[in-house]
Amino acid sequence: MIPRYSRPDMVAIWAPETKFRIWFEIEAHACDAQADLGVIPRENAEAVWTADGVAFDVSRIDEIEAVTKHDVIAFLTHLAEIVGADEARFVHQGMTSSDVLDTTFNIQLTRAADILITDLEALLAALKRRALEHKDTVRIGRSHGIHAEPTTMGLTFARFYAEMDRNLQRMKIARQEIATGAISGAVGTFANIDPAVEAHVCDKLGLIPEPISTQVIPRDRHAAFFATLGVIASSVENLATEIRHMQRTEVLEAEEFFSAGQKGSSAMPHKRNPVLTENLTGLARLVRSMALPAMENVALWHERDISHSSVERNIGPDATVTLDFALARLTNVVEKLVVYPEHMMRNMNQYKGLVMSQRVLLALTQKGASREAAYAMVQRNAMKVWEEGRDFQTELAADPEVTAILSQDEIAEKFDLGYHTKHVDTIFARVFGED
Amino acid sequence: MIPRYSRPDMVAIWAPETKFRIWFEIEAHACDAQADLGVIPRENAEAVWTADGVAFDVSRIDEIEAVTKHDVIAFLTHLAEIVGADEARFVHQGMTSSDVLDTTFNIQLTRAADILITDLEALLAALKRRALEHKDTVRIGRSHGIHAEPTTMGLTFARFYAEMDRNLQRMKIARQEIATGAISGAVGTFANIDPAVEAHVCDKLGLIPEPISTQVIPRDRHAAFFATLGVIASSVENLATEIRHMQRTEVLEAEEFFSAGQKGSSAMPHKRNPVLTENLTGLARLVRSMALPAMENVALWHERDISHSSVERNIGPDATVTLDFALARLTNVVEKLVVYPEHMMRNMNQYKGLVMSQRVLLALTQKGASREAAYAMVQRNAMKVWEEGRDFQTELAADPEVTAILSQDEIAEKFDLGYHTKHVDTIFARVFGED
Amino acid sequence: MIPRYSRPDMVAIWAPETKFRIWFEIEAHACDAQADLGVIPRENAEAVWTADGVAFDVSRIDEIEAVTKHDVIAFLTHLAEIVGADEARFVHQGMTSSDVLDTTFNIQLTRAADILITDLEALLAALKRRALEHKDTVRIGRSHGIHAEPTTMGLTFARFYAEMDRNLQRMKIARQEIATGAISGAVGTFANIDPAVEAHVCDKLGLIPEPISTQVIPRDRHAAFFATLGVIASSVENLATEIRHMQRTEVLEAEEFFSAGQKGSSAMPHKRNPVLTENLTGLARLVRSMALPAMENVALWHERDISHSSVERNIGPDATVTLDFALARLTNVVEKLVVYPEHMMRNMNQYKGLVMSQRVLLALTQKGASREAAYAMVQRNAMKVWEEGRDFQTELAADPEVTAILSQDEIAEKFDLGYHTKHVDTIFARVFGED
Amino acid sequence: MIPRYSRPDMVAIWAPETKFRIWFEIEAHACDAQADLGVIPRENAEAVWTADGVAFDVSRIDEIEAVTKHDVIAFLTHLAEIVGADEARFVHQGMTSSDVLDTTFNIQLTRAADILITDLEALLAALKRRALEHKDTVRIGRSHGIHAEPTTMGLTFARFYAEMDRNLQRMKIARQEIATGAISGAVGTFANIDPAVEAHVCDKLGLIPEPISTQVIPRDRHAAFFATLGVIASSVENLATEIRHMQRTEVLEAEEFFSAGQKGSSAMPHKRNPVLTENLTGLARLVRSMALPAMENVALWHERDISHSSVERNIGPDATVTLDFALARLTNVVEKLVVYPEHMMRNMNQYKGLVMSQRVLLALTQKGASREAAYAMVQRNAMKVWEEGRDFQTELAADPEVTAILSQDEIAEKFDLGYHTKHVDTIFARVFGED
Repeated sequence: MIPRYSRPDMVAIWAPETKFRIWFEIEAHACDAQADLGVIPRENAEAVWTADGVAFDVSRIDEIEAVTKHDVIAFLTHLAEIVGADEARFVHQGMTSSDVLDTTFNIQLTRAADILITDLEALLAALKRRALEHKDTVRIGRSHGIHAEPTTMGLTFARFYAEMDRNLQRMKIARQEIATGAISGAVGTFANIDPAVEAHVCDKLGLIPEPISTQVIPRDRHAAFFATLGVIASSVENLATEIRHMQRTEVLEAEEFFSAGQKGSSAMPHKRNPVLTENLTGLARLVRSMALPAMENVALWHERDISHSSVERNIGPDATVTLDFALARLTNVVEKLVVYPEHMMRNMNQYKGLVMSQRVLLALTQKGASREAAYAMVQRNAMKVWEEGRDFQTELAADPEVTAILSQDEIAEKFDLGYHTKHVDTIFARVFGED
Repeated sequence: MIPRYSRPDMVAIWAPETKFRIWFEIEAHACDAQADLGVIPRENAEAVWTADGVAFDVSRIDEIEAVTKHDVIAFLTHLAEIVGADEARFVHQGMTSSDVLDTTFNIQLTRAADILITDLEALLAALKRRALEHKDTVRIGRSHGIHAEPTTMGLTFARFYAEMDRNLQRMKIARQEIATGAISGAVGTFANIDPAVEAHVCDKLGLIPEPISTQVIPRDRHAAFFATLGVIASSVENLATEIRHMQRTEVLEAEEFFSAGQKGSSAMPHKRNPVLTENLTGLARLVRSMALPAMENVALWHERDISHSSVERNIGPDATVTLDFALARLTNVVEKLVVYPEHMMRNMNQYKGLVMSQRVLLALTQKGASREAAYAMVQRNAMKVWEEGRDFQTELAADPEVTAILSQDEIAEKFDLGYHTKHVDTIFARVFGED
Repeated sequence: MIPRYSRPDMVAIWAPETKFRIWFEIEAHACDAQADLGVIPRENAEAVWTADGVAFDVSRIDEIEAVTKHDVIAFLTHLAEIVGADEARFVHQGMTSSDVLDTTFNIQLTRAADILITDLEALLAALKRRALEHKDTVRIGRSHGIHAEPTTMGLTFARFYAEMDRNLQRMKIARQEIATGAISGAVGTFANIDPAVEAHVCDKLGLIPEPISTQVIPRDRHAAFFATLGVIASSVENLATEIRHMQRTEVLEAEEFFSAGQKGSSAMPHKRNPVLTENLTGLARLVRSMALPAMENVALWHERDISHSSVERNIGPDATVTLDFALARLTNVVEKLVVYPEHMMRNMNQYKGLVMSQRVLLALTQKGASREAAYAMVQRNAMKVWEEGRDFQTELAADPEVTAILSQDEIAEKFDLGYHTKHVDTIFARVFGED
Repeated sequence: MIPRYSRPDMVAIWAPETKFRIWFEIEAHACDAQADLGVIPRENAEAVWTADGVAFDVSRIDEIEAVTKHDVIAFLTHLAEIVGADEARFVHQGMTSSDVLDTTFNIQLTRAADILITDLEALLAALKRRALEHKDTVRIGRSHGIHAEPTTMGLTFARFYAEMDRNLQRMKIARQEIATGAISGAVGTFANIDPAVEAHVCDKLGLIPEPISTQVIPRDRHAAFFATLGVIASSVENLATEIRHMQRTEVLEAEEFFSAGQKGSSAMPHKRNPVLTENLTGLARLVRSMALPAMENVALWHERDISHSSVERNIGPDATVTLDFALARLTNVVEKLVVYPEHMMRNMNQYKGLVMSQRVLLALTQKGASREAAYAMVQRNAMKVWEEGRDFQTELAADPEVTAILSQDEIAEKFDLGYHTKHVDTIFARVFGED
């Protein structure tokens, strides 16, 4: 996580202030529940809430931690400084540090998921708008980077919409999976704390109690979470790659928006580089790579070890902040993408009519030519277009073996673009729903 | 995928015979739909089914592919050899190779998912049985590899049950995600083939039509699939690691089953090594590593490139065969795991009573000692146990500062094991449901 | 490792026959050394060599292993069947299975490295030949996929030569690192076997004795080895990506060789897809992904566990066979690459003269214009070329602010291609050496 | 990179101030070379050095970049503010931003490598000291976590010494590989700048000129660099894992140093958790994971794209800062590790004499017993030790079949520890050299 690739709302989730606020809420709600159970005096539970609204002094907590080398004890010591040592003496009773730390981490991830869900929804809205705008903008479809058959720019946007919509569903599942809390004590047996405390704290904080925890919440949940971010990041790369290809000098079917004051290159003022989508490609690599250590974190020793912690202190913020930034940047790129329909038409006609070769092939077969014979007829005329720049339709019309099978009208019909776009509405209905 | 780590049912899914059989079904069902639409003659569609039940000659197809360098054309050529060139001439009409290849790959992954789901269910059954068997078998809970507080072996099995149950849910979602098919032509526009063909083929083969495809089915689906396998593999490692720890010479709370004829080591006949779970640890690393190239596969160029193919030809079989083998092996290990309750008790009492220190700490606090004072009292007596091998309860009972707060009865009560297991039923109900 | 992406020499290294032959050599040489030391009778050592030249019966060994569940014991049993139980009774004395297994694995990796070194040398020869052939073939250099300044195709080949030459050096280091053997017994103390045996076996088999082993040869060596393969694979992807870009329909500056009988697509006969380099891109992902589990293998428990074994049984063959295939395929692609110099020139002139903008910018600055003013002059004329298809030189020549600084001759000089290629010889000398 | 896991010297390498200082040096040296060549006036080159010693205003540069969206231009603008717009007008002439950025990045990585080399040397010194200290401290060697044969704690330290020494060599190679610079212009042709400038700048900054660059220095160098960090991190995990195992409650052969004020757990005051080595395990996962995106960075489009940049802005600091911290922490752990020789002896004798079983097996064979018979004799007595807690030597001495072959003295001799340590000096000489 570096400032250059960060947005403030997501960064705030990972700020020490936020963390300590969540710790406070967990401890205070736990005291309430303990008081309900009669385990601790009501007045002590109420006293804790006097710290509500007080901004915790991060540097003071750091100072205490430097001595105790234990972050939760440092916080509790500071909390006692605020509410009074005597009043605070039942705080954290029966709990273990991980009860606080793990529940907090899951709250942070849940909030991060909420932002990512919003990000995805914004991206979907942009993709849908551009899809509808360019539903009928014809461009050549390419496989292997080679011209294949016509498609439309709207279908391109629509397929990324469908992909990102799947990612939205995945993100929602990941959010649901990670929204658990645990207040179950040192090894998860509730020996020193009643399950009712966990239930109360989780209820107050919008979590589901973890059905069975050890000292920690099981890390398969987190592995699934970060793997989901990795899949979404890979889709970001997918869309970024499409745009980078479209912006190539020789293709130039679209360009990232280029603001007036922006300088493309210190040396070549005419250059408009797809630097945003190139940047997104790199960010995708980063987010994706974090899925692996998250998976390695699953196998903790016995009831827990703390090897996952240093990983999560890094990838928790890094993966969510980076993906949030990437989604927002991508949404902006999509919204402002400059599309050049005329270049699309120019490119499609680079090898005149050649992209219609399959239609001709089919037509020949349907009129009775053997597959092999039809293939040969199409191939020999196609090669003349490819190598000599001729016009495919003209060549076919002059090939007696072809015209023995297809009339001139039949040949001409094969070069109608509408043929290729006739099911666009059907596909749009499948992607966006009927309206 | 190597024979040593393979099971036949999963291997069969990836056999050439299976693949060609699926190709045949796709082509034959597509012909039926084309005939329904009046695009091709009914008799040609029916003729294709004469190959139903015929075993395709894999070596013949390979022979043709060696010339054409195109696998689908090779198959179609061979199919025409069986049903007759003329009869077969409408086969594959309007389709592109990827229509067949991608739909087939998804069918194979769906079938693989079915096996993995069955594997997980078997593992869950084994874990549940062992959990119930050892619900009350007390052992020490460990955090950081260090004794913490008592728990039970049943809870250990139960937490792996809960984790594997989440994996089962993930696998079901992954199966659902991957069970799509596409018959949409060269760039996914249905230009040369009616969407009704796709609908028919998918219906017959138990798939959902891909809402929008290009030449290929989008690879975010596959990335999510293989990431799920990676998460499950990491859970396999988690359980394997627990068993490896339990089997350590100094711990020996459980052992992998050791058959009569088996030799542990050529040099040390007494050794019983946890080789199965060590093996599973390695297999987990393998399966997990395959999530990364699957994610890199998402960003294909434009409507598709074929870079994903060589990856999938490997990880498709490798990841599913390896995980199937690993889950089956793990189930076997769990079912036959030799558990040593007496060693569990021996280990727990290694530092006499020390694991009860938190209870004492809490008791002191609850009777009015300050947190810091209580901590000091517990710590100084604990150190005597730790360093001099004394008995914790005895030491406490002889510490006047402690006995000024707690009576001898109150001290004794803190060493009652039942205290730690009182919520086991509650947790079991949460994991396995009430009964 | 699948047959489609395999070559026989590398596959042979990993065949059971090869493995058993190496096992035999290790055991036989070890017996010689033991006889030299007087530990075992000379005649028993000599008797072992009677199995020299005998083809071991893999299925018989498998049969025995099915009972003993131990591969080395199975082999030794079979060996005893050949040389006689009595004669063979000192074979393997003082050794542990891993002495044989690890030394063998390192021999296999060393041999694999030798093939990979040969592969890289062949690739280098092809790259050098093509570099010299196209030393002066001008094409546009591109950054961000956007035209920048002219370069030559020879420089493109030369930079991949330099990169692959670095990979050759890395591979040689990796080979040197992995060429160690260990015959040090159950925990590496040589308690039951003299270090002289290790020295003799290693000397005979071209290895260096591992300075300190445990039961196993330390796995950081293997991690470094597979990481090196991952780096080389990434360079394969780099070159493959260049070719895929060059073959794009709109660019078409080069094409993979297209054999006469080959069919590009079942549907679009004119298409020539860069399927070989796309395939290489996927293979690179595969090889790269194997570096991770190799790194995870480093941390074995105490003197060893066997978790690395299942990983290495897979990635040992998979990574080396795949990379060997990839390098050979890439060499073939480079050797036969069809280069289109005329398309290179066509592409460079797509935006007439625009690629010379930096030269003009510099000239203006050098003649006294401020950086900002020069930038503005260049930018406004460049935009006319970009947006209206005008000729950059003509526009500049008509811009009074420009001509106030640069004469027409000075402007014309900026469009001389020789300016850009003047240091090609220098760079070639740096890459290929002076001659 | 987070402060908790950072050390100041490494962090300083990545500070904006350091970066801008290096940028300045590159530009100023380049001006000198340009003046030497007569390309720019000498006084302009000299004027640039007036900024030597001036602290660049990072916030001012950020401010300019916010407008220009180009970091190098922002810096050059600020530099011109310091040395005067007119004086500065030849700065950066003929160069491209990447000339500055890539050369700077390599300088930073080279400096980072220097720190890591120093770190490794400090770790090696600590390991050597502890190895010599515990050369003869006998402990049980374990394979698969199971007792095997005696070894010494000194050998444990020595094997990590040998591994880390290999890592030191790898790090030195990685440093050498990354210490290159490039001042070759927009596409690496030196069109606008003489190679002599590159030579001068590299010479002044301790770099080797990159033999052939494009716009950028080729990224296979960086992939190899970060892969090396990943291998070293994996070795850190290896040593950390050993210590974590030694500190397990049941084993307790060593402990991380536990300072007086430190609190182990808020709930269980007696616990001393191996939190430093657990932490290192997690940090290793992090560093290792960064090798993958570094490898993905190799395949840039044509002469370059900028996808690598966002990756490197993160992993450049993150991987080096984290590994520096990890190595320093590990050195500290090794230096202060509390070793318990008496616990080692206790553990070794847990199953009385059983670890000597291989010696007995060998002795029986050497005295003429068949391998199978000897195995059976050892096995049946070993099982009595294992299952009934008997003493192995006593059992053997009472087994008539054994005593028919071995005398009581011969049996006794097999239980001599010196037998296992007799080659320790030899191994130490191999690892540390003779002295």
